[in-house]
Amino acid sequence: MSGNTFGTLYCVTSFGESHGPAYGGVVDGCPPGLALSGDDLQKELDRRKPGTSRHVTQRRESDKVEILSGVYEGRTTGTPIGFLVRNEDQRSKDYSAIAERFRPGHADYTYWQKYGARDPRGGGRASARETLVRVAAGAIARKWLNERYGVSIRGCLAQLGPHAIDFEDWKFVDENSFFAANAQVVPKLEAYMDSLRESGDSVGARVNVVASGVPPGWGEPVYGRLDADIAAAMMSINAVKGVEIGAGFASVSQRGSEHGDEMTPEGFVSNNNGGVLGGISSGQDIVVSIALKPTSSIRLPRRTITTRGEAVTVATTGRHDPCVGIRATPIAEAMLACVLMDQALRHRAQCADVARPLQLEKPRKIN
Amino acid sequence: MSGNTFGTLYCVTSFGESHGPAYGGVVDGCPPGLALSGDDLQKELDRRKPGTSRHVTQRRESDKVEILSGVYEGRTTGTPIGFLVRNEDQRSKDYSAIAERFRPGHADYTYWQKYGARDPRGGGRASARETLVRVAAGAIARKWLNERYGVSIRGCLAQLGPHAIDFEDWKFVDENSFFAANAQVVPKLEAYMDSLRESGDSVGARVNVVASGVPPGWGEPVYGRLDADIAAAMMSINAVKGVEIGAGFASVSQRGSEHGDEMTPEGFVSNNNGGVLGGISSGQDIVVSIALKPTSSIRLPRRTITTRGEAVTVATTGRHDPCVGIRATPIAEAMLACVLMDQALRHRAQCADVARPLQLEKPRKIN
Amino acid sequence: MSGNTFGTLYCVTSFGESHGPAYGGVVDGCPPGLALSGDDLQKELDRRKPGTSRHVTQRRESDKVEILSGVYEGRTTGTPIGFLVRNEDQRSKDYSAIAERFRPGHADYTYWQKYGARDPRGGGRASARETLVRVAAGAIARKWLNERYGVSIRGCLAQLGPHAIDFEDWKFVDENSFFAANAQVVPKLEAYMDSLRESGDSVGARVNVVASGVPPGWGEPVYGRLDADIAAAMMSINAVKGVEIGAGFASVSQRGSEHGDEMTPEGFVSNNNGGVLGGISSGQDIVVSIALKPTSSIRLPRRTITTRGEAVTVATTGRHDPCVGIRATPIAEAMLACVLMDQALRHRAQCADVARPLQLEKPRKIN
Amino acid sequence: MSGNTFGTLYCVTSFGESHGPAYGGVVDGCPPGLALSGDDLQKELDRRKPGTSRHVTQRRESDKVEILSGVYEGRTTGTPIGFLVRNEDQRSKDYSAIAERFRPGHADYTYWQKYGARDPRGGGRASARETLVRVAAGAIARKWLNERYGVSIRGCLAQLGPHAIDFEDWKFVDENSFFAANAQVVPKLEAYMDSLRESGDSVGARVNVVASGVPPGWGEPVYGRLDADIAAAMMSINAVKGVEIGAGFASVSQRGSEHGDEMTPEGFVSNNNGGVLGGISSGQDIVVSIALKPTSSIRLPRRTITTRGEAVTVATTGRHDPCVGIRATPIAEAMLACVLMDQALRHRAQCADVARPLQLEKPRKIN
Repeated sequence: MSGNTFGTLYCVTSFGESHGPAYGGVVDGCPPGLALSGDDLQKELDRRKPGTSRHVTQRRESDKVEILSGVYEGRTTGTPIGFLVRNEDQRSKDYSAIAERFRPGHADYTYWQKYGARDPRGGGRASARETLVRVAAGAIARKWLNERYGVSIRGCLAQLGPHAIDFEDWKFVDENSFFAANAQVVPKLEAYMDSLRESGDSVGARVNVVASGVPPGWGEPVYGRLDADIAAAMMSINAVKGVEIGAGFASVSQRGSEHGDEMTPEGFVSNNNGGVLGGISSGQDIVVSIALKPTSSIRLPRRTITTRGEAVTVATTGRHDPCVGIRATPIAEAMLACVLMDQALRHRAQCADVARPLQLEKPRKIN
Repeated sequence: MSGNTFGTLYCVTSFGESHGPAYGGVVDGCPPGLALSGDDLQKELDRRKPGTSRHVTQRRESDKVEILSGVYEGRTTGTPIGFLVRNEDQRSKDYSAIAERFRPGHADYTYWQKYGARDPRGGGRASARETLVRVAAGAIARKWLNERYGVSIRGCLAQLGPHAIDFEDWKFVDENSFFAANAQVVPKLEAYMDSLRESGDSVGARVNVVASGVPPGWGEPVYGRLDADIAAAMMSINAVKGVEIGAGFASVSQRGSEHGDEMTPEGFVSNNNGGVLGGISSGQDIVVSIALKPTSSIRLPRRTITTRGEAVTVATTGRHDPCVGIRATPIAEAMLACVLMDQALRHRAQCADVARPLQLEKPRKIN
Repeated sequence: MSGNTFGTLYCVTSFGESHGPAYGGVVDGCPPGLALSGDDLQKELDRRKPGTSRHVTQRRESDKVEILSGVYEGRTTGTPIGFLVRNEDQRSKDYSAIAERFRPGHADYTYWQKYGARDPRGGGRASARETLVRVAAGAIARKWLNERYGVSIRGCLAQLGPHAIDFEDWKFVDENSFFAANAQVVPKLEAYMDSLRESGDSVGARVNVVASGVPPGWGEPVYGRLDADIAAAMMSINAVKGVEIGAGFASVSQRGSEHGDEMTPEGFVSNNNGGVLGGISSGQDIVVSIALKPTSSIRLPRRTITTRGEAVTVATTGRHDPCVGIRATPIAEAMLACVLMDQALRHRAQCADVARPLQLEKPRKIN
Repeated sequence: MSGNTFGTLYCVTSFGESHGPAYGGVVDGCPPGLALSGDDLQKELDRRKPGTSRHVTQRRESDKVEILSGVYEGRTTGTPIGFLVRNEDQRSKDYSAIAERFRPGHADYTYWQKYGARDPRGGGRASARETLVRVAAGAIARKWLNERYGVSIRGCLAQLGPHAIDFEDWKFVDENSFFAANAQVVPKLEAYMDSLRESGDSVGARVNVVASGVPPGWGEPVYGRLDADIAAAMMSINAVKGVEIGAGFASVSQRGSEHGDEMTPEGFVSNNNGGVLGGISSGQDIVVSIALKPTSSIRLPRRTITTRGEAVTVATTGRHDPCVGIRATPIAEAMLACVLMDQALRHRAQCADVARPLQLEKPRKIN
């Protein structure tokens, strides 16, 4: 299976470039009978849409999605769901400068070395605009997961550059343009972003995602583990450089007597493992954290080379997110949803006849 | 493809349980003509073998590997390479206690919930002993990568519980039982491990792995990225809870002007990206860091439940690594080798006709 | 990988229903640098287009294809090629009769039993109209195969119902609406079809496809054989009930001294094996023959049941091909092209370093 | 996924060569809880074992299988089932003649052209001895299919060279060494084989396989169809050159009013479609027929070339089946079992929540 499809049973295939005619995707393997309309996808697409605040790219795209197949009379039929989002705002522009010199930290150089040529307009296939396909596919997955298993998936911005953001309540997430689960911190973030934008620089971020209600048993040891799939899915998001499950890197200095989550008849007492043990879901919250690097397209001049190997400097003008992490929350949620749905289907394929031996009273939620 | 096979073209399939008759693996897709003998596998297996120092499990296994197919007159034929390692030291023991109560932090509980039953002897399929299959498969991959492309893969222990280990030189790694790239720190680590073992507790660790000499162009955007595959491969190793590429989580607080690696005609000036840009290798060192949680089998008593849901305590006796991270270095190296080989084959499948446009004088090595 | 994607490295993903808004496909894994335009796809699509003669369905579709991604400045970039064909002639009609009673020999019944519901309009996903995606994907593959390896792929109608069609010359194929490699037989076929259409019945057909110029070595034993992939690809075409390679079923009564193709320094003396030995191409022509069953939608009344299990009769009006085999030639060619391209890429992934040991002067072409 | 693994969820990986130390396989994805022992595999292996009559190869192999993993206390655990069969009778012999000249119709030539070298001993990886892995994997599948869904899979020799064998009753199949479902024909077949063996020649065969009790709904349109998977699985068996489902090539001259199987409330009236409509099982018997070419290793001298391209003749001595089709019945049954099990798991992954709308009283069995 080539690089633009992921999933074993819930398969997402993506195509499109930043300045081509359209992005589109195909979701194959969705169970039949799910109530689904374009609105279900649109709602999630609107959450990651560009141009929603001054802190993100000012590209104007309605990101209007059209479902082309797989739905009949308002319900999925079990056949592949094709969908399309036309690009609208491909501002005509001279790309010759960027076409010949590489932006430090950008995929310009590696695409060119791999394929011998590339579409330089707006990053081509490497543009983060591709993530809209993931969000659309994730919208279907999260709807099915919720209706079928009661799973809910939520995410929030946990750190913006130097500013860690304390978790207050999920309810705040959709009330600010940062996906911060904290209302008080917003003015500080806005001021920081205003100053950053003015400086012509960019910054990294951390995003947390949590899936609640996942039953125990999802995940395929030993290589197809749930956490391995999550790691791949998250690392495949543009700009992601690190992935943690549960305690993550804090595990390094923990002792076993601290890390190993004790159990009582009421459930787990803690959640250092982030809901995954031995690659299989434990019934606790799945807790994932990712690191996103700063946007590589910045206005500050930087040393680089041309396609002929000459030393030059490059400064990127144009409409770029100064922090790609700000719009990453719905993307990370979507990727987690797709992975969970895939593993849910894989689990019931092999283990549909297993009567789960023990139902703990009520899994203790640790967010 | 089910959960015990990984890779798209260099495919590794694994089987075996801790106390079953044997572990084995099948490597499919290896190019023909590679000089290969059992010794090539044995050399790497010996590096991860149990019982080599007092700081690791005292289980006695010779881990003698037998190649069963795919090699003729000392060279690979292109057909699948099957290999086998018999288990020898399955100490007869009463597993009834562990069979009925779950070790906190262990896969006991999730395997049982998933499959409805499990092999409790020595962790069954969840035992870290499975990693010998990875090491054997990795031995083939690293040999081919080295001979065909000059790639070398090295790893070291970067942190043991609270003790960060400064990188001194790769030459030290095979001179101590911790895989520390630092000779001076060894006495401190030994003292720490002695005290830890006495306490009955366990601890986490961090391991770094570096691949040098990888040419630019390996990796399949957007879901089959090189870094996504690395993340999955690393997260699939027992006890791993976090994966970083390059600057990893440090990227969160970096600015774009700091993170984006500048280029000169002599190569990159820094390596925050860890050798991967846009999911494709850049020609720099591939730099990966992983977090391993503390061993969950410890002597200290912990609260848990039985298979009938009753509250009890559990304390694990037997031969366990008090820090699984200590033996993880060759395993992480092997997984990186397998991923790189798979991507090397995938790259030349699609891009064999691409004349790489630019050959930078000499990629600057940043370890 | 779910059921609407095929190929390991040259991956084709398909979506769309007969009376939905559009059909579309994604081709992933195409090497970069191939000159490609919509015309390359259109040319092949026009060969299978409905309504081109009175002997096929009278549905009016321009089948105009739009490439949405993966091509920049007239050449493939190595990123996925998305394409779209809008449905135009979805005649408004009352499908309630067909929605409630099953056509004998049609997928109506099985889709409904599998998914619990189905899109009854024009056969929904089971419509042979889906094959346009295959033809578009095949157009790319055959272009690359031809430019890169000199492979040419041709097909013809070999039998129409009771009428076997002698092979005369490939040049005739595109000169008649039957894809017959024989000019003289055409009047007889036309008369037969006129009479068949009048009778309200339908009939089966046999189509042969040949790939010339395939170098020896393509194919992955033992399960990923070239012939196994061809068999799957052909059997996946609507209405196909049988596949032969080379001598096919005639092998049953052959002796080894007759079947085994002798070799001379000038090449093979015969081609009973149809260009595949041990699952690997031999350098001879790849020769494939397929059986297509008669169209199941016929005007003659037939016994069937309703969705409530009641005995009824059904007669299908509407625009149907009285012989699906007539338009099958470009489809079978396309499937063969896709399989060959996939295996070409797989072969060079594993064996790019193999110097083919022997170059036979000139493989003798047996068509 | 490379060429030596097949299946999407019920995955079979195979390794081994004719004269290497062993053959082995890994079955991944088997549901937990299935009662399984080595005897279940052995019983089927004994059916295809060499040396059971004078009409097949006289190679002496006990083909004793050892299960190495995946079974605990007599039941599958859900983890991969590894198994091994040691080769015993690798008669020491001078292979230099065969190593340097190609047997017409044999994979000698293509393996050598693909890989640049090959293991010439006994056909190496191309030996039909590899099919024991399929038979072992099929034994697990057929047991599960039978216990879980009541599916039974049976096969028989339908034609031996010129001699078509009328189907009488399944009960005869295991009472003669030809797997003929007909007792009376056996003396004629024996006389024919004796004469054939004496002549130094070989002959082709046809084998039929039938699966009864398959519920409607298995199969994934449009590329992952049940019949496409069956076609690939059958064509991947050594020597197979043709595959038919249901009426197969007879469909070519059928009319729609004859081919399309009518339905009544009691079920289907005929089974031209062989149990598959639109790629999905219909609930009728799955009926498959395959053509096997004559063995290519014969005593009669034939024209060929050497590895240096020189014209020579070759005659093969040694122990070969004069008709590979004779032992093919259990192999074809096994492949059908593996495909059905894979599709059963895939079906319930996607459609576990579908209440099958209609239960026909009793599907009419057509063998």
